[in-house]
Amino acid sequence: MRAAISVSAHLTDEERLAWLRLIRSQNVGPRTFRALIDHYGDARAALAALPGLARRGGASAPGRIATRDEALGEIRAVQSIGAALVALGEPDYPPRLMMIDDAPPLIAVRGKLAVLLRPTVAIVGARNASAAGIKFAERLARELGEAGLVVASGLARGIDAAAHRGSLASGTVAAIAGGHNRIYPPEHATLADAITADGVVLSEMPIDHEPRARDFPRRNRLISGLAAGVVVIEAAQRSGSLITARMALEQGREVFAVPGSPLDPRCEGSNNLLKQGATLVTEAGDIIAALRPIFERPPQLSAREPERPIAPSPGREPTADERTRITTLLGPTPVGIDDLIRLSGLPPAIVRAVLLELELAGTLERHGGGLVSLV
Amino acid sequence: MRAAISVSAHLTDEERLAWLRLIRSQNVGPRTFRALIDHYGDARAALAALPGLARRGGASAPGRIATRDEALGEIRAVQSIGAALVALGEPDYPPRLMMIDDAPPLIAVRGKLAVLLRPTVAIVGARNASAAGIKFAERLARELGEAGLVVASGLARGIDAAAHRGSLASGTVAAIAGGHNRIYPPEHATLADAITADGVVLSEMPIDHEPRARDFPRRNRLISGLAAGVVVIEAAQRSGSLITARMALEQGREVFAVPGSPLDPRCEGSNNLLKQGATLVTEAGDIIAALRPIFERPPQLSAREPERPIAPSPGREPTADERTRITTLLGPTPVGIDDLIRLSGLPPAIVRAVLLELELAGTLERHGGGLVSLV
Repeated sequence: MRAAISVSAHLTDEERLAWLRLIRSQNVGPRTFRALIDHYGDARAALAALPGLARRGGASAPGRIATRDEALGEIRAVQSIGAALVALGEPDYPPRLMMIDDAPPLIAVRGKLAVLLRPTVAIVGARNASAAGIKFAERLARELGEAGLVVASGLARGIDAAAHRGSLASGTVAAIAGGHNRIYPPEHATLADAITADGVVLSEMPIDHEPRARDFPRRNRLISGLAAGVVVIEAAQRSGSLITARMALEQGREVFAVPGSPLDPRCEGSNNLLKQGATLVTEAGDIIAALRPIFERPPQLSAREPERPIAPSPGREPTADERTRITTLLGPTPVGIDDLIRLSGLPPAIVRAVLLELELAGTLERHGGGLVSLV
Repeated sequence: MRAAISVSAHLTDEERLAWLRLIRSQNVGPRTFRALIDHYGDARAALAALPGLARRGGASAPGRIATRDEALGEIRAVQSIGAALVALGEPDYPPRLMMIDDAPPLIAVRGKLAVLLRPTVAIVGARNASAAGIKFAERLARELGEAGLVVASGLARGIDAAAHRGSLASGTVAAIAGGHNRIYPPEHATLADAITADGVVLSEMPIDHEPRARDFPRRNRLISGLAAGVVVIEAAQRSGSLITARMALEQGREVFAVPGSPLDPRCEGSNNLLKQGATLVTEAGDIIAALRPIFERPPQLSAREPERPIAPSPGREPTADERTRITTLLGPTPVGIDDLIRLSGLPPAIVRAVLLELELAGTLERHGGGLVSLV
């Protein structure tokens, strides 16, 4: 049994192709990808196992598997716009992003890849930001850049764009929700190009993927995942910026918020973050002081820190009885995989195999912290 | 030896007259007043001792002692505007104010005295407040009033006036820096009259005293002293509102601050209070939640809580040698009276007598926490 995802090694072209096919296949998200690689040892073996897994999980029709030609086409398209497809564990992969448990297996990055290895702070906030909010975001990003930090954001209107503009010269990273050929909002295509001069635009989606509403919260985990801390400027209640702040907390990142008038609904969410203990920011020094000790301990360059030793594949399929024992324990409320193993009394590898089957059949969802639930 | 200042007892007219003469005499502030009453038992004995004290303390000319006629004149003037002269320890004296170590011996109060006994919150802030700050102050004061709290402030322009306006109907207290006949700013005379309908205007100064710059910081201790907590809205760095916040901390009061834009210099001081741990306020509920446990334990109705048992008067004057031993230990840096007693090896009553002499001669200053220094 070899380490499934090795660190600091480049994939071969064939491996990269298999990784891309696997992550582009139906019902395979970043967490399932990792579980498959852990279970089958590499992407090619996992691809071969997909149809059987889905069938045994109860899928009426096998999930669609990305073809070799489709993957080759995507790789060529990525190359044609001057972007690179960087795999989890490769030297150019952002080290902090590597540490989140749903890190994308492959990211398409366009620009100066070296910024991905530098200390990074995220700035997010309202799309309909006030003039003062925009001015402050731009100033803060410039000051953080002058202090040697890279600024990450989401290329959205308002605060995001201001944060990128303020840090264009010092290096900024835009994590986008769609593919590189579908910059959103479209009028930020010029800003995206400007970012790549000294920074990076980054996407985990197929290059022509049109971003849908649900892609934005998913993308937000990349913004916080890239950074050691997230600064929220002007966030209304139930805004996307608060989702990024929540993800930052789940990922163990520092959360900062900029105070604002209680009469401005755009500051309600950010002021509430302050009430909940976020660090108050009125100048770049507040962020730098809080993050200095974190930057002084660089992230562990380990592609994965499994919560438990990975059990070797049992070399056999789960039996019908074993499958039933596990599905009976599952419901819509997320439950820990460790609990499933304990409560079912089955070998861990069998439990994981059943979960993969259900996942590939589209009936199981993987959450953070080793939790799973029925869809 | 009787308790020098008794609680919940009314002064006789003669006692009130002696108190007023004593506090209006030269070099007698609230702390000296207490020390004199402690040392001599009552105000009349202290008045008789003043000339000798000042002379022995090295004053070239004895400090001016307020005459009986002057005091009678002030009492009549206070009565003529419908105000009352309430003494420390009397039932109408605000119970929290009674607890600060430089509580004024006498306050001239105009309006509905009953509000002085109710739970109180102070609201202070910028004179050149923004429209949003004024709107928020008025709303917050109204909501606090609706929740049964009295709002105290300083009758200044901007935030103070808005806080009073918002709580006119529910009861508000204005602590002013000058005398009742010298309302500052003059255009707030109408507001002061409106306040007295259901609240109180309060002054420790002679009724015709024109407020000087140094009277405002001194007055600020009354605003915080009246309240269980102080809310700061829009305070610039080095502003009077920050002085009130500092006094609130010294008096053991809660400090609250309202967040504001980092680009607005009027919010720099209040945002800094938040960085230093003040409770963030965006609505009245934030204040009420924090103060409820404090209001549930009403202040101890004790006029004084001496840091140490008061030593009986020795019945003799300090000797020249004793005087020298103490003055040698004094300098411009505040030092504890307890340390002076320990380091001099003299009886506490002798040390206190020497300090009173120096004080009345105008060469000693009393600070909070039992500290004294040469002027």
